[in-house]
Amino acid sequence: MSSDEETGPVEETVFTWGAPPLKFGAGAADEIGFDLSQFGVRRVLVLTDPGVAALGIPQRVAENLARYGIDAAVHDGVHVEPSDASFAAAVEHARAEGPWDAFVAVGGGSSIDTAKAVNLLLSCGGELMDYVNKPIGRAAVPPRPLKPLVAVPTTAGTGAESTAMCVLDVLSMKVKTGISHWRLRPALAVVDPLLTMTLPPEVTASAGMDIVCHALESYTARWYADSARRAPEERVTYCGSNPVSDLWCEKAMALIARSFRRAVHSGGDGGGTGDGGTGGGAGDVEARTDMMMAATFAGMGFGNAGVHIPHANGYPIAGMVKEYRPSGYPQDEPMVPHGQSVSLTAPEAFRFSFSAAPERHLRAAELLAPGTASEESEPAERLPRVLTRLMRDIGIPNGIGGVGYGESDVPDLVPGTMKQQRLLSTCPRPVGEEEIERILLNSVQNW
Amino acid sequence: MSSDEETGPVEETVFTWGAPPLKFGAGAADEIGFDLSQFGVRRVLVLTDPGVAALGIPQRVAENLARYGIDAAVHDGVHVEPSDASFAAAVEHARAEGPWDAFVAVGGGSSIDTAKAVNLLLSCGGELMDYVNKPIGRAAVPPRPLKPLVAVPTTAGTGAESTAMCVLDVLSMKVKTGISHWRLRPALAVVDPLLTMTLPPEVTASAGMDIVCHALESYTARWYADSARRAPEERVTYCGSNPVSDLWCEKAMALIARSFRRAVHSGGDGGGTGDGGTGGGAGDVEARTDMMMAATFAGMGFGNAGVHIPHANGYPIAGMVKEYRPSGYPQDEPMVPHGQSVSLTAPEAFRFSFSAAPERHLRAAELLAPGTASEESEPAERLPRVLTRLMRDIGIPNGIGGVGYGESDVPDLVPGTMKQQRLLSTCPRPVGEEEIERILLNSVQNW
Repeated sequence: MSSDEETGPVEETVFTWGAPPLKFGAGAADEIGFDLSQFGVRRVLVLTDPGVAALGIPQRVAENLARYGIDAAVHDGVHVEPSDASFAAAVEHARAEGPWDAFVAVGGGSSIDTAKAVNLLLSCGGELMDYVNKPIGRAAVPPRPLKPLVAVPTTAGTGAESTAMCVLDVLSMKVKTGISHWRLRPALAVVDPLLTMTLPPEVTASAGMDIVCHALESYTARWYADSARRAPEERVTYCGSNPVSDLWCEKAMALIARSFRRAVHSGGDGGGTGDGGTGGGAGDVEARTDMMMAATFAGMGFGNAGVHIPHANGYPIAGMVKEYRPSGYPQDEPMVPHGQSVSLTAPEAFRFSFSAAPERHLRAAELLAPGTASEESEPAERLPRVLTRLMRDIGIPNGIGGVGYGESDVPDLVPGTMKQQRLLSTCPRPVGEEEIERILLNSVQNW
Repeated sequence: MSSDEETGPVEETVFTWGAPPLKFGAGAADEIGFDLSQFGVRRVLVLTDPGVAALGIPQRVAENLARYGIDAAVHDGVHVEPSDASFAAAVEHARAEGPWDAFVAVGGGSSIDTAKAVNLLLSCGGELMDYVNKPIGRAAVPPRPLKPLVAVPTTAGTGAESTAMCVLDVLSMKVKTGISHWRLRPALAVVDPLLTMTLPPEVTASAGMDIVCHALESYTARWYADSARRAPEERVTYCGSNPVSDLWCEKAMALIARSFRRAVHSGGDGGGTGDGGTGGGAGDVEARTDMMMAATFAGMGFGNAGVHIPHANGYPIAGMVKEYRPSGYPQDEPMVPHGQSVSLTAPEAFRFSFSAAPERHLRAAELLAPGTASEESEPAERLPRVLTRLMRDIGIPNGIGGVGYGESDVPDLVPGTMKQQRLLSTCPRPVGEEEIERILLNSVQNW
């Protein structure tokens, strides 16, 4: 029953939710040998990027695997902000050196997403575009279970360890898209806060804003029951906010409220410069633990509910970067870190979406700034105000102007956002080109 | 690093958590054909008990499977309160009629637990006692993945659809034990509140008290970090309360507070008499939905954290039943429904455990009775008072006296509790024979 001619569309009554098993805590990364031995595997490929490899973490994982009689090879060629080309290169490498019984991803979202794609193609055959979301690709369903993938995040940000999708740039079409199917979900998420102790403050701040946006966007996503009923064949991974994603997002916001500023300001010694950082220092284990938990929890939420305007805007903001080179990151090429790109329009986006779900916006503001959000008397301003206060405190650039865009660039950014219809349709309030243009214009400066 | 001679045992820093993917909502049970078609299966065994079979639900599932080209057979021979003998009979039936590509369990905890055991033995070979927990069995690790099991609860109670364990009576030893391994976790939990609309009020009340105890016992379980560090090989399914199980349990309690009394008093027409009920009536969909969600959420919690004294006491209270025949249940043999057996000593058990985790007991009382728990001035009395008030309101018997036990029976009950050391060790306060005896004596009458 997808509709009823007399009464109009029947509303949705069903939501879906899934998450990988989780091993969480200090030292968890040193148990992966045992965990993979339970799957009876013999040969494992560890995927990582050069910055994380330089910290020695993937090598430590490989040595732990060896202790359980598992042969492990480290491939440190993962490209940060992966593309169809970089996925293909990783797949080619894995095919040439394979076969593999399992995979371990050690790194940020780039490493984990690349490993998901490698696992998919080596387990199920075919070409990347067979599986990429429509209309870019053919959105084929993986025909069989994938090999076990253990995801080990080294930043508190993307939550990619919790989700069943991966994101990539399709270079020839200048578009960001993804592959999304429950079979991509890692067999195990191993989340060890000790891996993040030396992240420089700028990386902690940017990655943390990705968490904030995941939690806020899925908490304010269109309620699952406010859509027309889908046939089982039509169900999608992102079903809108629902009672389970709410649980995770609310807790992620509470953890952010308690520890984000502290993780930035006293998290490490801040001496690092690379992706993943190279600083030493004892840092603040409790704050790092909260941030890592917040990232994983927000992933458990948005990985099922979805994200909307701020992430949709983040794609062109990152993709059309001019000369911006953020401190704390490698200086060899211009970039807008993902967490900055998705947060720069968030205050204005939530000002826009407020009227469609006021209670949720107010509750989110209260969770992110307990006891102080209500100092702002205009309800629609509470969440934007909480966000701009946070972003100022942790050194996020002041709007898209802070990363090099002016009002005259807005018309060029809008089409990149409008391509993300899958995301925009998750917004609780209908949003078109004009609204996106206004949100971008009002985000040139956030304070 | 499991200990350090100079500083004593190192405390645990790691917790684990896992749950099946979830499809939740009215009508979800009518999508199982599609869901199993995704696994490429051809022949499926649907396991259920005679009471649920009489309602026609398993047959409806089988017909839905047929629509996707899947051959399905219904076996309605599951024994309520399963034993090694009933598990063996189900395994024998399944082996004789097999092979099967997947299993569907439709029913209460008995059907779901039986299906877990059948799936284990048909997927991995061997005998039941190979896998049963030590010291009763050999606690062998399942050597390979099990076939897909879809778990479809028809009562809001056990939460067995969420967990990776099954419980059985070992008849020859007169002991209750289980099989516990992450590979037993269902491939999908399909939770459809419409399946519970006609449960009679007595069944709603008893099963609901199982939810309350799951949530309370895992919320007050020993905190995971308050144990000595385990090597990865030594980790167990039940790791104590932790940040993830807390999320689920807190929400389960809030749902209980909102809807338990209503589900009992206006949930259906109360005309049923069988296990699963046979009453008609439109009932209260919202209250039924909340209760079904509470059961699943509490399962997501206790299935990882564990339960303690109330459940340990429930085993002998149910196992040594004399002449008690509860209304709303089949009258052909005496029985103490599981949800009654685990709740009758709960008020006194939480009076006992209060001092080990006072904040958690107070918070639980507040969640279960928002705004009224604090009317009781003695803090240790708040949770017991909330529970006895609830149990009176929904018609739960007044203590173990209400199901036929007197003070003179207590010495006979104690050994049955003391056999449950795995559960008792989850209590936040050390508990021995004397304490159990006192808790049982003080539970002969609860009000």
